[in-house]
Amino acid sequence: MNILIVGLGLIGASLAKAIKKNTNHTVFGWNRTQSVTARALADGVIDKTGDLEVIIPQADVTIINFYPQAIVPFIREHKDLFKQDSIVTDSCGIKTKICKELENDDFNFYYIGGHPMAGREVSGYDNSLATLFDNASFICTPYDNTPKAKTDTLVSLAEEIGFAQTVVTTPEHHDEMIAFTSQIAHVLACSYVLSPLAPYHRGFSAGSYRDVSRVARINADMWTQLFLDNKKALTQEIDDLVSNLLVFKESIEKDDEKTLHDLMEKGNKIKEEIG
Amino acid sequence: MNILIVGLGLIGASLAKAIKKNTNHTVFGWNRTQSVTARALADGVIDKTGDLEVIIPQADVTIINFYPQAIVPFIREHKDLFKQDSIVTDSCGIKTKICKELENDDFNFYYIGGHPMAGREVSGYDNSLATLFDNASFICTPYDNTPKAKTDTLVSLAEEIGFAQTVVTTPEHHDEMIAFTSQIAHVLACSYVLSPLAPYHRGFSAGSYRDVSRVARINADMWTQLFLDNKKALTQEIDDLVSNLLVFKESIEKDDEKTLHDLMEKGNKIKEEIG
Repeated sequence: MNILIVGLGLIGASLAKAIKKNTNHTVFGWNRTQSVTARALADGVIDKTGDLEVIIPQADVTIINFYPQAIVPFIREHKDLFKQDSIVTDSCGIKTKICKELENDDFNFYYIGGHPMAGREVSGYDNSLATLFDNASFICTPYDNTPKAKTDTLVSLAEEIGFAQTVVTTPEHHDEMIAFTSQIAHVLACSYVLSPLAPYHRGFSAGSYRDVSRVARINADMWTQLFLDNKKALTQEIDDLVSNLLVFKESIEKDDEKTLHDLMEKGNKIKEEIG
Repeated sequence: MNILIVGLGLIGASLAKAIKKNTNHTVFGWNRTQSVTARALADGVIDKTGDLEVIIPQADVTIINFYPQAIVPFIREHKDLFKQDSIVTDSCGIKTKICKELENDDFNFYYIGGHPMAGREVSGYDNSLATLFDNASFICTPYDNTPKAKTDTLVSLAEEIGFAQTVVTTPEHHDEMIAFTSQIAHVLACSYVLSPLAPYHRGFSAGSYRDVSRVARINADMWTQLFLDNKKALTQEIDDLVSNLLVFKESIEKDDEKTLHDLMEKGNKIKEEIG
């Protein structure tokens, strides 16, 4: 297949590298900043590039790697260029809003929401890795009327690329789960390092500080969009987290050893059994 | 020197292994469950053992590795056995309460609070590692009237053992910092996995879930004591964290893009600059 990677930042270029490394598909690449495209071509990260008018029509699968709010406009702007019956997908971390917006558009190709679940604290082409998706999960969110063959093609591609796991689900379930597994983790890491004591942690910190605070290294532009586009699920997670924290606080204040012990016993059990 | 390790669990046995590996001191060991002492002797983790009445008087440095509430009773019970002018220290994660309790006791040895800042999600002799303290910080909290030579001896020993960094501070400052770097991280990880969605995270999680939730694997017995013994500093940290989380929530609810972006920009900057 011809696979077009639009946007050669961390995720796009890592996808290109993984496809080149693990499959025989031809990789077309395009990036808004042309110097990045030129480097990707010179580095052998992509096989071909060219004007969008020329390369979009050749792609059997197009993967768009933009910030959330730029995806729908890009697809609509180029809707007449995509190859008939081809697959158009994206890699952004929220799905409901985008899938809903595109649901009633009249396309002769198939849009299927995608989310390759991997990331780094750093971004951009220079930090891309062919191994970024090893051990990672690929999630896609087809519509009820998406032909099964198209979803299967996308899932098979993800397996070829090297994802450890593929999940087909609804956009709504994706967003609810991602609010828990990813978004709230970033909110809490950020809230944690905003403590007045953070600047003085050296000499007093070990693995727990390092791990819990890691994802406070955050791309504020992108995550602002992701959080606002998943308001309901994310605020629910914040509420749940805050209420658990307040049970901790109250039990500590009241010397309520039993409640405190039970909370940790329960948390430990969940982590031990579920990972 | 003769160094006595009392309690051969994760921390005690790791200290014994690191001392054997990195220094020429003689390691005496003792554990309440005698089968563990016997194994440590057979494994060469300790050089010698024996009844407390026999080995305590031989130790130049005694390191007590018990749960917080067992340290003061152990020291008081054996106070007439410790060698004159020897150093007695411990490895537990809170210092103010213990140091205050022992401050006015009449000893002919020197108690100096200690905290080797390392741990694992697993505990016990079987999980001990000679390398546990590589890259770790050793904190000690002498009294104002502790002779400098005694503190220096303890700090030098920590350096010999292989700690990457040593910090001499007050018990109060230790406990305030530890509430932030370690205790709240555990409270947070535990509160996080108590979300109703945790059991369903598979397929939807990546590095951020893994790292932020890691220390939810917690020894509930030990941490209940540690949290209750550091009530003031820890509840302050919970308050700070909850108020940051609620600013996140409010800005998301109100589509307040600027506040949300500023919060993350600030968090990212702290993490980038301070680590």
